[in-house]
Amino acid sequence: MCMHDEAATHYIDMIDQTTMGHRFLKEEFGVTPRIGWQIDPFGHSAVQAYLLGSEVGFDSLFFGRIDYQDRAKRKNEKSLEVIWQGSKSLGSSAQIFAGAFPENYEPPAGFYFEVNDNSPIVQDNIDLFDYNVQDRVNDFVAAAVSQANITRTNHIMWTMGTDFKYQYANSWFRQLDKLIHYVNKDGRVNALYSTPSIYTDAKYATKETWPLKTDDFFPYADRENAYWTGYFTSRPAFKYYVRLMSGYYLAAKQLELFKGRMNSGPNTDSLADALAIAQHHDGVSGTEKQHVANDYSKRLSIGYKEAEQLVASSLACLVESASFTGCQNPVTKFQQCPLMNISYCPPSEVDLNQGKNLVIVVYNSLGWRRNEVVRIPVSNEDVIVYDSEGKEIVSQLLPQAEVYASLRNYHVMAYLGETPAKAPKYWLAFTVSVPPLGFSTYRVSAAKGTVAGPTRSSVYTYQTSETSKIEVGQGNLRLTFPPNQEKFTNYVNTRNSVEEQIKQSYLYYSGYNGTDDEVPQNSGAYVFRPNSTYLLKHERQVPLTVMRGPLLDEVHQQINPWIYQITRLQKEKEHVEVEFTVGPIPIDDGIGKEVVTRISTSMETNKSFYTDSNGRDFIKRIRDYRSDWDLEVNQPIAGNYYPINLGIYVKDNSTEFSVLVDRSVGGSSLADGEIELMVHRRLLLDDSKGVAEALNETVCVFDDCKGLIIQGKVYYRIDPLGEGAKWRRTVGQEIYSPLLLAFSEQDGDDWINSHILTYSGIDSNYRLPDNVAIITLQELDGGKVLLRLAHLYEIDEDKDLSAMASVELKKLFPRKKIKEVKEMSLSANQERTDMERKRLEWKVEGSFGSVDERVLRGGLVDPEELSVELGPMEIRTFIVYFESESDIKPFDV
Amino acid sequence: MCMHDEAATHYIDMIDQTTMGHRFLKEEFGVTPRIGWQIDPFGHSAVQAYLLGSEVGFDSLFFGRIDYQDRAKRKNEKSLEVIWQGSKSLGSSAQIFAGAFPENYEPPAGFYFEVNDNSPIVQDNIDLFDYNVQDRVNDFVAAAVSQANITRTNHIMWTMGTDFKYQYANSWFRQLDKLIHYVNKDGRVNALYSTPSIYTDAKYATKETWPLKTDDFFPYADRENAYWTGYFTSRPAFKYYVRLMSGYYLAAKQLELFKGRMNSGPNTDSLADALAIAQHHDGVSGTEKQHVANDYSKRLSIGYKEAEQLVASSLACLVESASFTGCQNPVTKFQQCPLMNISYCPPSEVDLNQGKNLVIVVYNSLGWRRNEVVRIPVSNEDVIVYDSEGKEIVSQLLPQAEVYASLRNYHVMAYLGETPAKAPKYWLAFTVSVPPLGFSTYRVSAAKGTVAGPTRSSVYTYQTSETSKIEVGQGNLRLTFPPNQEKFTNYVNTRNSVEEQIKQSYLYYSGYNGTDDEVPQNSGAYVFRPNSTYLLKHERQVPLTVMRGPLLDEVHQQINPWIYQITRLQKEKEHVEVEFTVGPIPIDDGIGKEVVTRISTSMETNKSFYTDSNGRDFIKRIRDYRSDWDLEVNQPIAGNYYPINLGIYVKDNSTEFSVLVDRSVGGSSLADGEIELMVHRRLLLDDSKGVAEALNETVCVFDDCKGLIIQGKVYYRIDPLGEGAKWRRTVGQEIYSPLLLAFSEQDGDDWINSHILTYSGIDSNYRLPDNVAIITLQELDGGKVLLRLAHLYEIDEDKDLSAMASVELKKLFPRKKIKEVKEMSLSANQERTDMERKRLEWKVEGSFGSVDERVLRGGLVDPEELSVELGPMEIRTFIVYFESESDIKPFDV
Repeated sequence: MCMHDEAATHYIDMIDQTTMGHRFLKEEFGVTPRIGWQIDPFGHSAVQAYLLGSEVGFDSLFFGRIDYQDRAKRKNEKSLEVIWQGSKSLGSSAQIFAGAFPENYEPPAGFYFEVNDNSPIVQDNIDLFDYNVQDRVNDFVAAAVSQANITRTNHIMWTMGTDFKYQYANSWFRQLDKLIHYVNKDGRVNALYSTPSIYTDAKYATKETWPLKTDDFFPYADRENAYWTGYFTSRPAFKYYVRLMSGYYLAAKQLELFKGRMNSGPNTDSLADALAIAQHHDGVSGTEKQHVANDYSKRLSIGYKEAEQLVASSLACLVESASFTGCQNPVTKFQQCPLMNISYCPPSEVDLNQGKNLVIVVYNSLGWRRNEVVRIPVSNEDVIVYDSEGKEIVSQLLPQAEVYASLRNYHVMAYLGETPAKAPKYWLAFTVSVPPLGFSTYRVSAAKGTVAGPTRSSVYTYQTSETSKIEVGQGNLRLTFPPNQEKFTNYVNTRNSVEEQIKQSYLYYSGYNGTDDEVPQNSGAYVFRPNSTYLLKHERQVPLTVMRGPLLDEVHQQINPWIYQITRLQKEKEHVEVEFTVGPIPIDDGIGKEVVTRISTSMETNKSFYTDSNGRDFIKRIRDYRSDWDLEVNQPIAGNYYPINLGIYVKDNSTEFSVLVDRSVGGSSLADGEIELMVHRRLLLDDSKGVAEALNETVCVFDDCKGLIIQGKVYYRIDPLGEGAKWRRTVGQEIYSPLLLAFSEQDGDDWINSHILTYSGIDSNYRLPDNVAIITLQELDGGKVLLRLAHLYEIDEDKDLSAMASVELKKLFPRKKIKEVKEMSLSANQERTDMERKRLEWKVEGSFGSVDERVLRGGLVDPEELSVELGPMEIRTFIVYFESESDIKPFDV
Repeated sequence: MCMHDEAATHYIDMIDQTTMGHRFLKEEFGVTPRIGWQIDPFGHSAVQAYLLGSEVGFDSLFFGRIDYQDRAKRKNEKSLEVIWQGSKSLGSSAQIFAGAFPENYEPPAGFYFEVNDNSPIVQDNIDLFDYNVQDRVNDFVAAAVSQANITRTNHIMWTMGTDFKYQYANSWFRQLDKLIHYVNKDGRVNALYSTPSIYTDAKYATKETWPLKTDDFFPYADRENAYWTGYFTSRPAFKYYVRLMSGYYLAAKQLELFKGRMNSGPNTDSLADALAIAQHHDGVSGTEKQHVANDYSKRLSIGYKEAEQLVASSLACLVESASFTGCQNPVTKFQQCPLMNISYCPPSEVDLNQGKNLVIVVYNSLGWRRNEVVRIPVSNEDVIVYDSEGKEIVSQLLPQAEVYASLRNYHVMAYLGETPAKAPKYWLAFTVSVPPLGFSTYRVSAAKGTVAGPTRSSVYTYQTSETSKIEVGQGNLRLTFPPNQEKFTNYVNTRNSVEEQIKQSYLYYSGYNGTDDEVPQNSGAYVFRPNSTYLLKHERQVPLTVMRGPLLDEVHQQINPWIYQITRLQKEKEHVEVEFTVGPIPIDDGIGKEVVTRISTSMETNKSFYTDSNGRDFIKRIRDYRSDWDLEVNQPIAGNYYPINLGIYVKDNSTEFSVLVDRSVGGSSLADGEIELMVHRRLLLDDSKGVAEALNETVCVFDDCKGLIIQGKVYYRIDPLGEGAKWRRTVGQEIYSPLLLAFSEQDGDDWINSHILTYSGIDSNYRLPDNVAIITLQELDGGKVLLRLAHLYEIDEDKDLSAMASVELKKLFPRKKIKEVKEMSLSANQERTDMERKRLEWKVEGSFGSVDERVLRGGLVDPEELSVELGPMEIRTFIVYFESESDIKPFDV
């Protein structure tokens, strides 16, 4: 549906939007595209090459933007065109012929033919003064020879056009027609209207060998001081919105399938459309103008609203299934709380003292059971929580931080146009346990009249002095904060004896204003160009606020007037959750700022760190180093930034230190043992790369605007060496697919008698292996189902889980009988066997026969067994056909 | 053929180009245009209104650019639309409805629909987020009402487009279609695709009265400090080339008629085309880019080359007419010398000592006999000149100034690509007498062997000391130069006792570089924005060189290293001719300069001066004053500059001081008694008005370029009050139509026996009245002739000559019999009677019946008498049909 970004996009979104586009092309035009055409994105990802390239069946992948130093070297070595193996797990089994153009995606200089362009047209009327056929032919041949000199084989490609061209196509084609005619008449070169496919076939036919390329093309700099690493973080709120919607869409499609898809009426189509277009390289990248960003958000919001209805009615059907008779109009009304992050959730804020019960259905879209603490805002002080079996469970009340009340009031007015009711006083936390692809039901009631018991919530809060250490953590993980907040915090995991001194701080980079340059370069929406760095001092006057309880501990810190942070430790988890609220970033000094949080340890990490590629493979990064060329370091900060969608980690001889993120951000390890993430940017100048606006986001109530505030989370953990992957992969998946909460209220407590309280969309005795996720489960036209299974581990990533996994398809559809399963290309527009049969066999330079590869892929699916194997990093896509259309209804158990 | 400029154009060129265009439209499409559409020219002339407006039969005239102060007042008074009477002589008989647009020729703000424009399109798909029909309709209505509030009647016109728009017309019409649809549906205003004609008819139908406008709309400023008066002088060499070609074209058409026009083979068509297009408001105005100026010049050169052949062969036919038998291939070879201004004339430089005779045919395109001194470069020292009757006549040799030799060498190489022969030593001057529309023949021979006589040329030159006065002048006019060249020169005419102290000086203005402005404004191709003034000191070390002789005296002065001046007095003339050579203007100080020559007298001229309108009517100018509004003076120099095509004069109680020019220039009278003319400009910055180049003209020999050198002439004279007009009109016409010299050489002296020596194209006993000129005499298809007669005087301009004049058509065509004469509109695309019948009668505000007008126009032409009357300033256009096609040949006398 768009030429997606490759840095700030999650692989599931990339697959979804590509699937939507490829299936559209197939259905409307019968076309199966052969070529990837990522000419504009600002750097190129490994996932693009191996998943969205090779695994969708492309024969080649072309792009315009690679690092200027890299390009120079590749021109010199005729290595702009390569065989790219983006995944070390899948190796040559998922390689692709890939070509970077010599100059972005420009025509040769002097061959621009837009109405306003200045290139000489071909004047072939010999009676006119500007007759210039031979001149233009000579220019053409010279440009062709020049490019041929940096290209292997005799074939070159010209991209005749660039941004915003062909607004009046005739002005181009008139000239191109003439050029082709006269150049071929001249005969020195042969010119033709071509396509990337024709070009690819011509290259392939030469039987040339090509250099091997691994990893990716990040970060991208188009010149000294212009590192396009700012956009990894630009528009962090929008990036979070996209991520939130992405996880919600995945869950909503499951619920849509369980209920039965309706082509009209609430469905997930609008959300799918909005999410697809938002993956654009000037979309989720944050590099669009403000009004375009607004439009993306509006589309997402519209899509969400419709999906929210679908989710509510699907859950209603599922809880009512005892009385199910078609379920177009279930009576149960569920509400959801998309603004829960600012503690706004009207259904949970209801006054329970009036005899109402709050019913919470918690849906889990993952393939394994989850036990997690959930938090909801409540107004009552004295409540009891019941689980699906009607048992009282332990819960904990945490006072709402004061800053959240103003956040809530301002943003509810800004986004909903209404003044919210009085802010709820508490967060109510309790642990839920939810089956795979299913739900559990919880009930909250006022605890009136009953005596306090072990499960009854109460509040444990106190302010610390500055003179004592504070230890928090009820379980294995303990953090000990020093009296001086500038000093190190002690991190201990008592289970595995990991201990480390860590220090978390906030800093900002001043955005460069470019005035000193010969060619000015500001920091802007695309480019990160820091001027100098400032550490943001903690406000020592403000003591820590610590909340402790049976389920979790929180440490609240007002870092400075515009940064608030909560450090949260769940008793049953061994990671630290940091919730930060950053902004409005002050700009009254006229200086744009880019805010980072930095977590330092004493680990000796040898300049190395690891960042994910679109949330999938981890790629090793080495500070001030590129594997493809001798790096000239011009921007020691910006030039070491990489996109992070899932997480980043460093390791030393004994431990690994991992940080996971809740959205796409830029990050790095600028010193050994240290990880930093850029969480917010507010800039006052344009960086002259096309957006033509300063990245200065605001939120307005009527005409009263203030700088955007970002609330987000990072999660970190220290593991013994070799044990971090399991946490990163499992919790990473849980962050991507948070539990979905739906609220209802009921007088009395007869819910338990009249509703289904737990449910699983798959066989209730089955769960997916720990190393596999269902990344797509979606009903297609005609009742067939699109199923995509992803192995979550790379080769050698985990001693147990980097192994072949197996999924029993029959267990996934317990209520239906599978008639047939077709394995498809990743974008589901052709059968996998067809795709493999057409695959071109490219020759890799220096590779003679035996390659030391241990690629593991699952075998063909036996039509009877219907067991699917998945090797490390393998994603397999199926269309599942069922015996009868009516079987698709999930309720005829 | 183009939207001509209105400042730097001569009225004959304006008429010619308009005639060509109007006749083309008539012949190709049968269309007679009704509207003048001068939307872009930078100020608007009286001649445009009354001649190229009313007299071509236009019903209205529209334009975009008028002074910002004027516009503000007119908006306020609803007087953007007026009845414009451009000529005080023709008054209401040549008025036109004229309208200035509210904002140049822009659409209303927010209604730009070029592909790259930012105005919101009309989104009428209600399903889309940017649906905005009502918003756009409201914007439209608001813009319409806003304009209606400054406009008389309910009709307003929108110019939906501007420069460079409609490159892809669909992008506009798609929006305009929608706007018209929805606005009319809304109903508050009625919108339609209109034309200026429809608009004019609608205005006329209202019977509204309109304010009266006289004079013109010069100078034009679009804002404070942006007076568009630089272009009056910009590209002075090109302006001269256009003027030279204009006069040549007039003569060549006469000779083409006399010989008989050939549709193929040498004719004047190319020159006509080139001249027509050169009148463009970014043509002769000097406001085009350099490569465009080069193209105009190239076209003129090609046209000239062909016309030169035609002139040579026509003259050859005419001199050979005794043996005339069709005259397609006359044997006589005539050469002409377009580079005579730099003393390059190979045919006249021939060595006469080898027995060759130089034959010079001198053609006079005016309707009266001319007696003038001509000068030609010769190599021989000792020559005798013979007239058409074989008599020796007085001649005079003047040594070539040294500076001319280098001028000649450099520019012959630059323009012809060849090194010229050794520079000729002398100018040979002699007086010629030439009949109207005819020629005389002169012969120059070496004076070998004969003794010196009164008619034999010799040289009279000497250098002056600095201590004595120098008196020059052999006739009535005497100039006495003071010993100190900074002091005043005494000017005496002994015939009429006029005496005046005058001082001529050169100054330059530094071009402003705009850095101090809020909105920067440099001096540039359009805008004259002086910074400060510098007087160029005479180099006192260089003594005057004085050359005296029987025919003329010359005073040579090297003003400074880059200004050379010759002051020339012909014995038989009572004016001073100043030939200046200015340039290259030095720019090594990084400052652009605009050079003026200023002639100061002690006359008390009461802030008033008079400048011509396109070489025709004189308009009174008052320093720091506008008749139409209270002028706020922001630019006391640039804001007092006016375009000058013919001349400028000032007067006091007793005398008038007139200066005539050889091309279009800018000029003013910045102090009483003073006249200044800008003769050259060289600037280093663009003025941001569209040309996007600095006006920094150079001349190159291969890659060696130097600043352009301008050679030109001004003529001045002081007359008793009321007596200046006759000189200005007569000599003005002679400057416009210089004598045309054609050279041949012959061994021996039998030319006189074998050739026609004198000729007149009209009846040999007839001459035109002193107050009439033939401004067009041109053969059209089918042997008919286009004849245009112009009265040269305004009402009250001269006590004798501002009277009704009469021309006998029969005498103009002595060799043919007139069958019919049709009086036409000025542009000859309709009969005058048809045009007058259709003329709209507009109501002028405050004019109730009796107007104090003394308009004098000639009566209808009696078809038998064929006598044409012309009132002051009247121009009458005829197509003359002859009895038989063969009668057109002029040679069957």
